[in-house]
Amino acid sequence: MKRQATADGVAAAAKRLEGVVTRTPLLPLDHGGGRVWVKAECLQRGGSFKYRGASNRLLRLTEAERRAGVVAFSSGNHAQGVALAAARLGIAAAIVMPADAPGVKVEATRAAGAEIRFYDRARESREEIAARLAAERAAVLVPSFDDVDVIEGQGSVGVEIAAQLGGAPDRVIVPCGGGGLSAGIALALPGSAVVTAEPEGWDDMARSLEAGEILPVAEPAPVTRCDALQTKRVSELTFAPLRAAGARGVAVSEAEVAAAVAFAARHLRIVAEPGGAAALAAFLAGKAGPAGERTVVVVSGGNVDPGLYAQLIGGRIAP
Amino acid sequence: MKRQATADGVAAAAKRLEGVVTRTPLLPLDHGGGRVWVKAECLQRGGSFKYRGASNRLLRLTEAERRAGVVAFSSGNHAQGVALAAARLGIAAAIVMPADAPGVKVEATRAAGAEIRFYDRARESREEIAARLAAERAAVLVPSFDDVDVIEGQGSVGVEIAAQLGGAPDRVIVPCGGGGLSAGIALALPGSAVVTAEPEGWDDMARSLEAGEILPVAEPAPVTRCDALQTKRVSELTFAPLRAAGARGVAVSEAEVAAAVAFAARHLRIVAEPGGAAALAAFLAGKAGPAGERTVVVVSGGNVDPGLYAQLIGGRIAP
Repeated sequence: MKRQATADGVAAAAKRLEGVVTRTPLLPLDHGGGRVWVKAECLQRGGSFKYRGASNRLLRLTEAERRAGVVAFSSGNHAQGVALAAARLGIAAAIVMPADAPGVKVEATRAAGAEIRFYDRARESREEIAARLAAERAAVLVPSFDDVDVIEGQGSVGVEIAAQLGGAPDRVIVPCGGGGLSAGIALALPGSAVVTAEPEGWDDMARSLEAGEILPVAEPAPVTRCDALQTKRVSELTFAPLRAAGARGVAVSEAEVAAAVAFAARHLRIVAEPGGAAALAAFLAGKAGPAGERTVVVVSGGNVDPGLYAQLIGGRIAP
Repeated sequence: MKRQATADGVAAAAKRLEGVVTRTPLLPLDHGGGRVWVKAECLQRGGSFKYRGASNRLLRLTEAERRAGVVAFSSGNHAQGVALAAARLGIAAAIVMPADAPGVKVEATRAAGAEIRFYDRARESREEIAARLAAERAAVLVPSFDDVDVIEGQGSVGVEIAAQLGGAPDRVIVPCGGGGLSAGIALALPGSAVVTAEPEGWDDMARSLEAGEILPVAEPAPVTRCDALQTKRVSELTFAPLRAAGARGVAVSEAEVAAAVAFAARHLRIVAEPGGAAALAAFLAGKAGPAGERTVVVVSGGNVDPGLYAQLIGGRIAP
């Protein structure tokens, strides 16, 4: 049987990552009557939780693997996470990115010292390119979510939440792309109801949890500003822990996401990217559960092009 | 002799404020070669450090004083700090604000439940209005910086910095209006060089430290976007600890401040208001000391009108 992520694995990852990752703050959401907090993971190194899973994976490489380097494919946040984690450990990293990835994410990945290989989303397969690169170099491929070490590293967010609150919250709401973050948190917080938040039309985790089996995104998928959540199919490794935890999923509209980005700037003074604000959007829209519960809303990333961001917070963008 | 703020008072304030204030994160500034951190005090309740000093002052009121309520005057951040601290303790608060205060600050102060009395900056004296209100109600006036308890409360920022770093940094750079925050930090971190940052033309603390005596802002003072730092004269209570610590001050331009606000959004994912970004502006402009030192840059506030903020981060504003 394939190895599965576990609660013990998450606890070990959290310990391994102490002093490596930023312990991001739990910010009180005063609109929540004193019982709602935002876990501001956009303040993580590299601007998203991805640095946790990447660091956990890289810290488990053998010496020989470290020397050969790593390869990853990502539209941006995982790219930055792997690039920064690799740079910290002196490991060479090659990242396969779509040619239309947000400029801010490409620049930051390059600034961290990674080699970038662009591909055309419409005509090329990033999986094939990355696999070929990895084979050529005998390098380890670091998946963005379909990997036990990566999932367990992301779960350290949940371990921190419990430590900061002095116990598990009643409910935790988490943006969901491939499901690595939400699966890791579900393992870390078995006493909490877990709600995943996805953009409308990209809510395959919600539909999969409802159906009890993995369903892909229905084509054609709509355009969304949540570039970090555009994953067409979750994996068994991320689905299983969420299903076992009884998690459910909700979908948010582009307008709800834009409002949440503006809210985060104004009331929390954090920069959230659209995908990173999906769970906050669900909470603010009243979609994610009853009021009065002790609730933690995860803001998972803050890498957004300044031009788009200025439009979103200035309220000058069509829903 | 008038009571002075002391290091012991700062330590006691930090203890009193545990669990009341948000322990704001120290975010690594990767541009600083791993030896520079930003203390993100814009993530404090109310969006600035002012909640610390206000809470410390209010926690020291007698029962009779609590019943009578408090009065404060402020263009915004101190207003929000006092309003939130008072709301938390069930104390009535009346705030005297200039009619041209940023809308976001006025709304947040009102949302916290405070009564607001507007005045005309050009024709009325906020000191007189506040003193009259306080006398009418037998209420305690909570000054924004010229008060021992307020200064000692602000100093809890420095206590947290030392705890988070495991010791005092070589240098700490602090935005300076009346000097409450920088004086409190100087008392908390006697082993650190303290640099205050002010807008050009409003650098009376810098000139006072250089002269060895308090000098007011020279009239006419220039227009600045740093509304939080428009203080025309510091006080003996804030000047004395900074002078004793050998602090020095630097001035930053409006263009440097705008660049720092954009930098904070893009690289730290925090919302800094112009005045809150003054120390970061000084650091990025290379004005605040030698490279290579362990440096903490305080970002002191993040309350900025969304329209102005969108212009600042979108790079569509003239220097």
